[in-house]
Amino acid sequence: MLKDRTMAEKPEEAELKARLSAARNRLAAQQMQIKEHKLPVLVLMEGWGTAGKGSTIGQVIRNIDPRFFKVVSLEKATEEERRKPFLSRYFTNIPEAGKFVFLDSGWMDEVTKLCLHEKLDGKAYEMKIDSIRRFERQLTDNGYLVLKFFFHIGEKEQKKRIDSLLEDIDTKWRVSDSDKWQNKHYDKCMEVYDRYLEVTNAPSAPWYIVDAKSRKWAELQVLETLTEGIDIALQNSALAVPLLQNVFPLVKMPKLEEIPLDVMMEEEEYKEELDRLQEHLRELHNRLYRKQVPVIIAYEGWDAAGKGGNIKRITEALDPRGFEVHPIASPEPHEKARHYLWRFWSRLPKTGHIAIFDRSWYGRVMVERLEGFCSENDWKRAYNEMNEFEKELSDWGAVIIKFWVQIDKDTQLQRFELRQNTPEKRWKITDEDWRNREKWDAYEAAVNEMIQKTSTVYAPWHILESVDKKYARIKALKIIIEEIEKAL
Amino acid sequence: MLKDRTMAEKPEEAELKARLSAARNRLAAQQMQIKEHKLPVLVLMEGWGTAGKGSTIGQVIRNIDPRFFKVVSLEKATEEERRKPFLSRYFTNIPEAGKFVFLDSGWMDEVTKLCLHEKLDGKAYEMKIDSIRRFERQLTDNGYLVLKFFFHIGEKEQKKRIDSLLEDIDTKWRVSDSDKWQNKHYDKCMEVYDRYLEVTNAPSAPWYIVDAKSRKWAELQVLETLTEGIDIALQNSALAVPLLQNVFPLVKMPKLEEIPLDVMMEEEEYKEELDRLQEHLRELHNRLYRKQVPVIIAYEGWDAAGKGGNIKRITEALDPRGFEVHPIASPEPHEKARHYLWRFWSRLPKTGHIAIFDRSWYGRVMVERLEGFCSENDWKRAYNEMNEFEKELSDWGAVIIKFWVQIDKDTQLQRFELRQNTPEKRWKITDEDWRNREKWDAYEAAVNEMIQKTSTVYAPWHILESVDKKYARIKALKIIIEEIEKAL
Repeated sequence: MLKDRTMAEKPEEAELKARLSAARNRLAAQQMQIKEHKLPVLVLMEGWGTAGKGSTIGQVIRNIDPRFFKVVSLEKATEEERRKPFLSRYFTNIPEAGKFVFLDSGWMDEVTKLCLHEKLDGKAYEMKIDSIRRFERQLTDNGYLVLKFFFHIGEKEQKKRIDSLLEDIDTKWRVSDSDKWQNKHYDKCMEVYDRYLEVTNAPSAPWYIVDAKSRKWAELQVLETLTEGIDIALQNSALAVPLLQNVFPLVKMPKLEEIPLDVMMEEEEYKEELDRLQEHLRELHNRLYRKQVPVIIAYEGWDAAGKGGNIKRITEALDPRGFEVHPIASPEPHEKARHYLWRFWSRLPKTGHIAIFDRSWYGRVMVERLEGFCSENDWKRAYNEMNEFEKELSDWGAVIIKFWVQIDKDTQLQRFELRQNTPEKRWKITDEDWRNREKWDAYEAAVNEMIQKTSTVYAPWHILESVDKKYARIKALKIIIEEIEKAL
Repeated sequence: MLKDRTMAEKPEEAELKARLSAARNRLAAQQMQIKEHKLPVLVLMEGWGTAGKGSTIGQVIRNIDPRFFKVVSLEKATEEERRKPFLSRYFTNIPEAGKFVFLDSGWMDEVTKLCLHEKLDGKAYEMKIDSIRRFERQLTDNGYLVLKFFFHIGEKEQKKRIDSLLEDIDTKWRVSDSDKWQNKHYDKCMEVYDRYLEVTNAPSAPWYIVDAKSRKWAELQVLETLTEGIDIALQNSALAVPLLQNVFPLVKMPKLEEIPLDVMMEEEEYKEELDRLQEHLRELHNRLYRKQVPVIIAYEGWDAAGKGGNIKRITEALDPRGFEVHPIASPEPHEKARHYLWRFWSRLPKTGHIAIFDRSWYGRVMVERLEGFCSENDWKRAYNEMNEFEKELSDWGAVIIKFWVQIDKDTQLQRFELRQNTPEKRWKITDEDWRNREKWDAYEAAVNEMIQKTSTVYAPWHILESVDKKYARIKALKIIIEEIEKAL
């Protein structure tokens, strides 16, 4: 992509000025349309050291109201960040609807650096590329405008810039060791960049190579591409995208109606087992921490199925410094304004920690599907998006445990009535619960589809038969212990 | 893609029947919507020999009115087809708006076969893959629904089917040598198919792997994917797509206003030169034919600039059996119903032949742009699409010569008036010519942009200064001779 490519020709000074001014005005005008159309715009700036990524961002943002953009400059990952999955610090930094994020180097920089310093073998490199393609595709599929710029300068030009910056005491600090290394290994870098640009050049998020020899000219190229891209994105409202076939190995799962719910456990046996298993889990939690294995547990289930009590029996066994429970309700406005997985990406545990989700990302294919909070294309696409999400987590090394807490309709009615009639339990039952109950059949069909389509071998669903809550709690503990032991 | 993939599970007989019947009805209902929305649907069926591609197509089309689909079965390329560019027989077979084309194996089969028989080295393979990606992207960018199915069966299953077909005298003929070869080299084929599926799995035209173990089940998978894909495509009207940055090396070209038009040639010199050059071209045409080099010459220029007379001086020198002139007017309805490059793909010369286009595919960025016959996104995207088109032709080995026949506005006026006032020339001037003349400035800007953006090193524009038509004719002959000689 970099070699043999003719750069657009830098126009004469007068034309350059005129076009710059036109493009700046266009961008200034677009920011209100972006807001109105709720378009999120992610601008990724990659390229050679000293090519002027930062200063171009500085110029571009002058045309945008500070409330509408954020500049994110990601240097080396922090200790904290290194304890999260590779994509986490990028996913958590995506813009919200109607706003810009400018990323001053990002995932390309990270991956190509690993590659250049031989810290990624062929297989690992391919996995990273897969992750990146999925990430970018998930964004564009969900209505994000993703613009990727690569700032290109020649070897000599870079050398000249480095030397000139080094000469001056005031600018010396701007040359990083990495810049110098890059210039010394220019051809090798070129090859690695070229390969990366090639394999990540998706039609929906293509690369734009910027001739960065002159600052104003680079700014113009970015502004014109940016404003053009925005205009095109504004034309496409509520885009539907092809549904991809599942590529992840699946576990065969039963349908809900096939699951016998008459399993139960005597009080005495329950108590003994509970003590024994909690003790075991407690000990495992320590080993998890030492081995830095992250664990993600998601609970879904019918209202009044007993999720809360089940979670409590797990957390009782855990060191409070090493776990967190995330109750998931309707998204807050700032969450709703981003990709629906954003609020889960930003709640991931660090390595060695346990995150328990009381309801989860699967709301997309249940309540959001059934209440029409997202389009049909959105929820149909979501099965694959969630499998991809969990694939990232699994590749990162996480143990992923997903529970469906199952009861029958009669049991739910009894528990609803009990809640209604018991003053201290009444807060637990709302009108919404009764409304949801009316849609039992539709929910059951949705749950069946979800369980079939998202029981991957690396993150299968486990059914907790919870007519007898004791039975369900013991089963949950056993599964968690078993899954953690497999990972240790 | 083929290995480790869990196939969707074949449902029970009763469910299979119910879903088949639902999917068939859905497809039957969709055909009218497809017609109404003018959606063209290209269904590519690839896969293992004896996997049942053909019989599945046979089942699927039962639900569609015969006026709305065509089944294209491309076996080995004919002698004629082999004298056209690789993509030509696929491009010429794309569906028209509102209709289906089912391709019983296509470009995947062709490329993987070459690959398996070691007739494509690494570089050539990559070029083919690039061609295919561009082809598919051009279709989806232009509103085509492209559905790609790969029919998958295991090695043993294939062996069983081959043996069983061979046993019966009536079915024996259905087993091709290629099927047998495939089964003998199953693993090698698997590897080549897998690689191909991987690199051509674009989000806008993804692959669907069909578990082809049972015929009805295969049909269901195809029908459900097809109907789902159609529903999604129907939701997207007038989709705008990102504009890709140019990746082809360009030649620096002057602007029209910078070209001096006061060049001319004396009558006597003209006649001598004309004779000499025509004689030379005549001789080259023979050598072209023997060396099987195809030549494509495109003329664009102002009304009354002298295109016709110029072309005449070329064709006078050519053997009529070896060239064709294609006057390009507004597209016919059946042409308008397809990708705008279709009518040019179907007019390509055979190797050794010369095709002269009197006006060309560049109408897209001139008249179609200025008269609003296509969307802004369409014509802006077209520069790249035409560079890609010519890249295909150039890689095929064609000599591509593009002329812009240039006059100034005053000269045009004189010629218009002469035509108007000369009875035998009056047919040459229409109201439309006068209307176009009023838009001279807009056309000039469009032409300048076109010349800048599509003068690739493999297909640059040549300006013919045609205030003096004699000068322009001699220049055209010289350029054609020079370009052909370079290729011989």
